[in-house]
Amino acid sequence: MEDVLSKRQRPKIDDYADEGYLFGILHFPAYDKNVQRLNAGELDFFLGPDYLVTISNVELLPVTRLFSRVEEDEHFRNQLFEKGSGRLLYEVLDDLFDYCFPILDKIAYKLDSIEDDIDERRSEEIVSDISKAKQEIISYRKIIKPQRPALRLLERRIGRFLPEELELYFDDLIDASERIWDLLDNYKEVVEALEDTNESLISHRQNDVLRVLTVFGAIFLPLTFLTGVFGMNVLYPGEGTHTAFWVIVGLMIGTIVGMIAFFRYKRWL
Amino acid sequence: MEDVLSKRQRPKIDDYADEGYLFGILHFPAYDKNVQRLNAGELDFFLGPDYLVTISNVELLPVTRLFSRVEEDEHFRNQLFEKGSGRLLYEVLDDLFDYCFPILDKIAYKLDSIEDDIDERRSEEIVSDISKAKQEIISYRKIIKPQRPALRLLERRIGRFLPEELELYFDDLIDASERIWDLLDNYKEVVEALEDTNESLISHRQNDVLRVLTVFGAIFLPLTFLTGVFGMNVLYPGEGTHTAFWVIVGLMIGTIVGMIAFFRYKRWL
Amino acid sequence: MEDVLSKRQRPKIDDYADEGYLFGILHFPAYDKNVQRLNAGELDFFLGPDYLVTISNVELLPVTRLFSRVEEDEHFRNQLFEKGSGRLLYEVLDDLFDYCFPILDKIAYKLDSIEDDIDERRSEEIVSDISKAKQEIISYRKIIKPQRPALRLLERRIGRFLPEELELYFDDLIDASERIWDLLDNYKEVVEALEDTNESLISHRQNDVLRVLTVFGAIFLPLTFLTGVFGMNVLYPGEGTHTAFWVIVGLMIGTIVGMIAFFRYKRWL
Amino acid sequence: MEDVLSKRQRPKIDDYADEGYLFGILHFPAYDKNVQRLNAGELDFFLGPDYLVTISNVELLPVTRLFSRVEEDEHFRNQLFEKGSGRLLYEVLDDLFDYCFPILDKIAYKLDSIEDDIDERRSEEIVSDISKAKQEIISYRKIIKPQRPALRLLERRIGRFLPEELELYFDDLIDASERIWDLLDNYKEVVEALEDTNESLISHRQNDVLRVLTVFGAIFLPLTFLTGVFGMNVLYPGEGTHTAFWVIVGLMIGTIVGMIAFFRYKRWL
Amino acid sequence: MEDVLSKRQRPKIDDYADEGYLFGILHFPAYDKNVQRLNAGELDFFLGPDYLVTISNVELLPVTRLFSRVEEDEHFRNQLFEKGSGRLLYEVLDDLFDYCFPILDKIAYKLDSIEDDIDERRSEEIVSDISKAKQEIISYRKIIKPQRPALRLLERRIGRFLPEELELYFDDLIDASERIWDLLDNYKEVVEALEDTNESLISHRQNDVLRVLTVFGAIFLPLTFLTGVFGMNVLYPGEGTHTAFWVIVGLMIGTIVGMIAFFRYKRWL
Repeated sequence: MEDVLSKRQRPKIDDYADEGYLFGILHFPAYDKNVQRLNAGELDFFLGPDYLVTISNVELLPVTRLFSRVEEDEHFRNQLFEKGSGRLLYEVLDDLFDYCFPILDKIAYKLDSIEDDIDERRSEEIVSDISKAKQEIISYRKIIKPQRPALRLLERRIGRFLPEELELYFDDLIDASERIWDLLDNYKEVVEALEDTNESLISHRQNDVLRVLTVFGAIFLPLTFLTGVFGMNVLYPGEGTHTAFWVIVGLMIGTIVGMIAFFRYKRWL
Repeated sequence: MEDVLSKRQRPKIDDYADEGYLFGILHFPAYDKNVQRLNAGELDFFLGPDYLVTISNVELLPVTRLFSRVEEDEHFRNQLFEKGSGRLLYEVLDDLFDYCFPILDKIAYKLDSIEDDIDERRSEEIVSDISKAKQEIISYRKIIKPQRPALRLLERRIGRFLPEELELYFDDLIDASERIWDLLDNYKEVVEALEDTNESLISHRQNDVLRVLTVFGAIFLPLTFLTGVFGMNVLYPGEGTHTAFWVIVGLMIGTIVGMIAFFRYKRWL
Repeated sequence: MEDVLSKRQRPKIDDYADEGYLFGILHFPAYDKNVQRLNAGELDFFLGPDYLVTISNVELLPVTRLFSRVEEDEHFRNQLFEKGSGRLLYEVLDDLFDYCFPILDKIAYKLDSIEDDIDERRSEEIVSDISKAKQEIISYRKIIKPQRPALRLLERRIGRFLPEELELYFDDLIDASERIWDLLDNYKEVVEALEDTNESLISHRQNDVLRVLTVFGAIFLPLTFLTGVFGMNVLYPGEGTHTAFWVIVGLMIGTIVGMIAFFRYKRWL
Repeated sequence: MEDVLSKRQRPKIDDYADEGYLFGILHFPAYDKNVQRLNAGELDFFLGPDYLVTISNVELLPVTRLFSRVEEDEHFRNQLFEKGSGRLLYEVLDDLFDYCFPILDKIAYKLDSIEDDIDERRSEEIVSDISKAKQEIISYRKIIKPQRPALRLLERRIGRFLPEELELYFDDLIDASERIWDLLDNYKEVVEALEDTNESLISHRQNDVLRVLTVFGAIFLPLTFLTGVFGMNVLYPGEGTHTAFWVIVGLMIGTIVGMIAFFRYKRWL
Repeated sequence: MEDVLSKRQRPKIDDYADEGYLFGILHFPAYDKNVQRLNAGELDFFLGPDYLVTISNVELLPVTRLFSRVEEDEHFRNQLFEKGSGRLLYEVLDDLFDYCFPILDKIAYKLDSIEDDIDERRSEEIVSDISKAKQEIISYRKIIKPQRPALRLLERRIGRFLPEELELYFDDLIDASERIWDLLDNYKEVVEALEDTNESLISHRQNDVLRVLTVFGAIFLPLTFLTGVFGMNVLYPGEGTHTAFWVIVGLMIGTIVGMIAFFRYKRWL
């Protein structure tokens, strides 16, 4: 009882074989709309030979839906209950795991759209999108990671409460949790690759910007200096003549052409 | 005895089965206010059939508090002591582990506030906050990591000093230490993700700054050059006329419009 | 049957020993030309003592080719079928694994050409090529990773359906999948090294660009300032004389030489 | 014998049970002052029932010191020798491991001083300090890593040469080597975190520098252009009047105020 | 036979116990001078009770040398052959492993010279050297990694073909391959640390360059503006007087001193 009340719990399965029941804690992702973050919804359950009690700290939609369907639909209730408490637990967990995939799909969709947009959109949005996707993947991993050994333990202990032909069912749950974990691993690799690509693109664009600045600076700073020289109020050779103007213009065009050739050679243009 | 006196010790459990006692060293995080750093507080204990001696190199608050409560409150003392020395050790360790979580919560709070502020605040503070949080997480991990195998060993060896129905208790301690480890792992991932995001944001902002500089440079360097040309003290066509002024102004406006169009096309504006 | 219909499946082998058949799901890479991406093609199979049924969600070319050859060539069919259903499955899987290597070769070729071009080409293309190669490797890994334990299981379970001398054959399949995994690991290391190199090169080139800009700025900004000083419409010493011009020119050449010496010393030139 | 002479050896323990002796190779860090680098000092030993021969490729100070003390101090010698050859080996290794910690402390001290200075000192020194600390940690890890399985093996094989009550002693050596490894792991994490922080700080400072440049450029480039326009030797409206001057000055002050407001809004000032 | 002919093979040992021979595939690094790259040279061997056949896809120098020595030197041949086929295989493999170390030494030498030069040389060469060393280490790891389990297997299976006293010999081969792997791991850490250091140095140098540019810009842009103001062809207070000149010069010196003080305070000078 203490475990149910205490707030900090890891997913675990405790087998009270003497008292004839199984106590388990499992965590499932639940999107909290208020803080726009993925939180762990805790599901505690007591599984006895002919009863199943579940307690959760937040409302887990699939559980609520299953139970309300059980209340309303007598036929469904009989069908479900006659197969024993183990089968009922399976139905609850199966619905909860099914509910995990749409969240994963949403993450996958976000990653896809980041990949498509990475060349085109302003980098600030991309940085923020990548950061959010990454934090979501990390939160999800935090919830699923300690789940996996607990599920394995559950499969081993559940036998007592299940007709024999149903033992394979819990295998499916482990399969689902392993699949979620594989996908999260893959998403983590993808989002990190996208982040690296984005970082490279930002660096590359910075080079582009700097090249333009440097080309303008390297061409016009010397030229402006030249005009400055001939704008001084001192007596230089050719001052106040037409010839000087055309000579200077020639000089300037020479400088420009030389610079452009230099930058072409450096492949900056 | 040598182990108690020597300064460098890893967490460990030595079973002196012949002498009938258990010697253990465990480490707990203790925040040292002087150097503002997380240090390892060492707890050495001798657990005999009817005695428990604990020695610690720094004051561990939860231990002090428990012992002073034992001294003051006779009822509590009796209640605690009648269950044997193993139970007493459990109480000590349980209090110490409970004391670990507030420090973790403080780290989590810091990470949350970094995440909220990362877009808005000056990057220097963020860099320093991230660095401090990271060092704290690393220090914490250093303390907890070697603890885990020692605790597992303790659980196996403690049986002799415990009434049977209490054996599950030490499971809770392992659970707590695993939970701390999971959280630290998660925090490490989070802080690294925040660091990467911050790095990307700094790069992105640098691009912003450079774009502004480049746009100003690319527009005004050529224009200033133009004014320089017509400021030279030589005789150029149209020198000293009104027409020339308006022609030049037209030329300049053309340059500006062209440049802005070019930068719009490059999406720098 | 449910497993065949449901969309989300991990590679797995289920042994329905009572019913006398083996059900398996394996994934193979299939290049989807529409989205230019590597997807997982799913191959489900039922292997009975004398039948093999395969179902796949996308067309797997090697399977189609094998089956059409079986249809057309009677001799080949007899030869294949007389060795039993296990051997037939081997042929299917062997063809599928053979088909994996050309895709790997294509990735290797891409990595080679990136390595050759990394010094010479524009960095934007390189960034995009590296990013695409990386995503392809990640997609491939996602497909092959969960395959490996399933193949191991298949090898252990396949014995019933195989003449004894053929047991080594399935070893070859595991060998092939391990080899693919090793290559993917190696490619991942290579592409990450290329990415780091490219990042360093971009940074290095940025330094080059900035050095040019700084050299031009540091030489011509002071000089232009000097010409500005002597262009002011105030009476400075030497105003309107020839001597002043040559003094100023001397001053400027001195500045230029000094600056170039300074930048040589700093090794920026 | 061949193993002693050959130069390339990994730490290992070979049990020549038939000949009744144990041959071992262990590596210990030895600071080579000439190249200012941490090298592996090799200690080869032959441990027989009543003899211990040690050979080392470089002078290992703790071994030299122990042996010279044995030579000088008869009482110490007797005390040491009467406990058997296994005990003597323990003393040698214990001294060698004790000698490992001061080097670790020096690294820890360096990391602490880098952390304190990271905000204040010039980044070039920090980069070089971090790089040196990292290389030292890597060298140390290279020496200790293959040591650990060899020590475990030694503990298992040493039993024959030790009185029973001393078996726990070799546990202490393993403890010491594990502690060194844990510390190196921790130091590696710390130095990598410091490197990342330093990298972020350099990027941040670059932003600072660029902001200053951009603010100056964006304010004075347009203003200089304006003065250029009115410095041209053409007839513009208001040329040669006092009013024009004050109008222009007003225009300039307006530009400056507008720019500063813009940069305040962008939080660059 | 198929395995020898097929091109894609992982290192492996197949024990054809019934036919009384052992078939193995091992890979060794072979430097291909044409493409300047490390490739895997494949050595296939058939080991029977009294024969050893080796086949390799490229010329492996040590094997060629051993065999030509065997051909020429009758004494050596007899000595080698009388110890059985297992011993002969050992000699071949031992020579091949000995041949691995010079390549490793060359890599180590390159890393050392990169470390020495990293502060001084132009960063472009360093980037390219680091990249090459890294690719070489990655290629080497690719060759050695799958080798290790194959060697372990070989040691277990070789017993049949070896006199008992020689069994320790194959231990040496495993030792050598483990040592190579350890060194490659260490080199990988070293080269990655060098890359990070180089990256930090490039960033640091960029800061240096930018600081110089900014200092020049921030000092001379305002000054040039000032000269521009007093170069305008309008009537400003003090126009055409000596006093104005000296007032302006004073103003400029004040600006310069103020700027330098500001940059000193910011530690940019």
